[in-house]
Amino acid sequence: MRASFETIAWTPGGTVRLLDQTRLPLEEIYVECRDWPEVAEAIRLMRVRGAPAIGVAGGMGMALAARGLAADRFEPFLSELEQVGAALVRARPTAVNLRWGIERILEFARKRRDLPLPELRRAIADEARRMRDEDIAVNRAMGAHGQALVPDRATILTHCNAGALATAGYGTALGVIRAAVEAGKRVSVLAGETRPWLQGARLTAWELQRDGIPVRVIADAMAASLMRQGRVQLVVVGADRIAANGDVANKIGTYAVALLARAHGIPFYVAAPASTFDLRLASGAAIPIEERDPEEVTHIAGVRVCPPGVGALNPVFDVTPAEHVTAIITERGILRPPYPEAIRARIPVEG
Amino acid sequence: MRASFETIAWTPGGTVRLLDQTRLPLEEIYVECRDWPEVAEAIRLMRVRGAPAIGVAGGMGMALAARGLAADRFEPFLSELEQVGAALVRARPTAVNLRWGIERILEFARKRRDLPLPELRRAIADEARRMRDEDIAVNRAMGAHGQALVPDRATILTHCNAGALATAGYGTALGVIRAAVEAGKRVSVLAGETRPWLQGARLTAWELQRDGIPVRVIADAMAASLMRQGRVQLVVVGADRIAANGDVANKIGTYAVALLARAHGIPFYVAAPASTFDLRLASGAAIPIEERDPEEVTHIAGVRVCPPGVGALNPVFDVTPAEHVTAIITERGILRPPYPEAIRARIPVEG
Repeated sequence: MRASFETIAWTPGGTVRLLDQTRLPLEEIYVECRDWPEVAEAIRLMRVRGAPAIGVAGGMGMALAARGLAADRFEPFLSELEQVGAALVRARPTAVNLRWGIERILEFARKRRDLPLPELRRAIADEARRMRDEDIAVNRAMGAHGQALVPDRATILTHCNAGALATAGYGTALGVIRAAVEAGKRVSVLAGETRPWLQGARLTAWELQRDGIPVRVIADAMAASLMRQGRVQLVVVGADRIAANGDVANKIGTYAVALLARAHGIPFYVAAPASTFDLRLASGAAIPIEERDPEEVTHIAGVRVCPPGVGALNPVFDVTPAEHVTAIITERGILRPPYPEAIRARIPVEG
Repeated sequence: MRASFETIAWTPGGTVRLLDQTRLPLEEIYVECRDWPEVAEAIRLMRVRGAPAIGVAGGMGMALAARGLAADRFEPFLSELEQVGAALVRARPTAVNLRWGIERILEFARKRRDLPLPELRRAIADEARRMRDEDIAVNRAMGAHGQALVPDRATILTHCNAGALATAGYGTALGVIRAAVEAGKRVSVLAGETRPWLQGARLTAWELQRDGIPVRVIADAMAASLMRQGRVQLVVVGADRIAANGDVANKIGTYAVALLARAHGIPFYVAAPASTFDLRLASGAAIPIEERDPEEVTHIAGVRVCPPGVGALNPVFDVTPAEHVTAIITERGILRPPYPEAIRARIPVEG
């Protein structure tokens, strides 16, 4: 079961086509980027979001740039491409994957200085497409491993959107769910709405409905009560970053779900590719928690819900200690505690 | 410190004045009810909400009715008043306190059949005012007991609105906080926004700001992470119903906060008057969990956030098992485990 829509694609006409996630779930609109500044703009406006998807968008933006550069020798070509990369990364300076996607194309080019430029331009476009295909392949491998953990007839709780929309396609946490459906399991999904941004209500609900997978939305605060009533069999979420000891940084609210799952004896799984592991971090304590604009809490869908003058807290991520994670599903297999050993054995140091 | 606004009042002109809670937090509008159908309408439209406040509104609505009845003998007077009571209760048929407030006035009248009718009408109005004053007195007594549990400089997490807005004034959980402030303690409040209705963001934030008590709003899913960072010293919430074993039914999300508090070694207090205890219920398992319209989850402030066709769950209450409740603050003192014994000793059977 592939996702029935394409988050990001390189079109036959040589443009980059993105599903505009700011218009979901009410409209399914695709934007077509003809040059790299249009890709930068789409990233900046969050038309494309999710770490892996942004990484691929960065790579494809670089491929559009390479095609358009007027240089007829390698040195000026590379120098101009590097300048584009520096500009493109500013579209979302804190997105590690954007930097990674751009750097991968630059490295690719640096190693091919002997190719004729027209050939190099084509090779770069191929490499950008390969990044997308690799991301989907990694998600599929994760799904194949992870679906074994899903019992038939399970109701699965997820948080935020770790789906086809956040990746080049298929998804991490939602990839595990898609793979379970492909394996013939009859599952049903509860999507935590994920305040303040409502990625669960807006995006997870949209993409699962689109693929015909039963999904219902809940307010985040409802999860505990549903668990107590036996209405949740397992939890699966994605991850933004995983430390060497297995601590998981992910969207705010993930840690609560992990604690609540543990209190009710429900397995809590994290689905994340090897690239999510940051082995320079000994533990989650070293992960800084970004705080964003309080307006994301005090306003919903443009409507003020708090009294004027009342502030709000808005931490974007939280850290779930490894002890609350039942298993980590990766494309290299399923990691189980003790995580430091499991991670050392299966995850390459370059991450 | 009394609340700087009046949720419900009997005006010198003999009308019932209500703070319109559907207009909060953006507008502070009072509606004046001249007869009982206007009170019924205000209850039906949720201009007044919160179990104790609705009970007092019911009593005052009956007093308005008593004044307006044309009957000049006791029997037809009582019969007409009973008919008004039956109509008024339909404004919110599931509100136990509304029925209680109406019945209290009817009982009061039945016992005074020998009074001249003009005098009885005045006595009924006095009784309705007394219901309001008693509710505030009960809240103040609860506050006096409960504030002893609040350390200086504490950051207090609360959920939903168990405040002056939900009662005749002062509040239950927020009454404890007001009493702590009166006792000179420097406290700060985190208000869980309380999806789907946002009573925390809309009402708790408004009434604490109005009284100059520092308050910030958080999305419900943020509580766990803030607890882990040591940014919450205690939790205090209200209750809708408490069973004989100490199980607490309250707004959805309360159970999650209780579990999370316990996991972080943070005290979790429930503030509730003796009238909240329903000693016919052996445990919380006997409390039915009402499910409301999924649109309250799929839409926020009138704006659709979920894809069309995707459903949602919307349980209104949850049940927190007594084992997770550190103490129950009542006007009769602070109850501690084992609750069955503490409740039997302090709470009269009539509730």
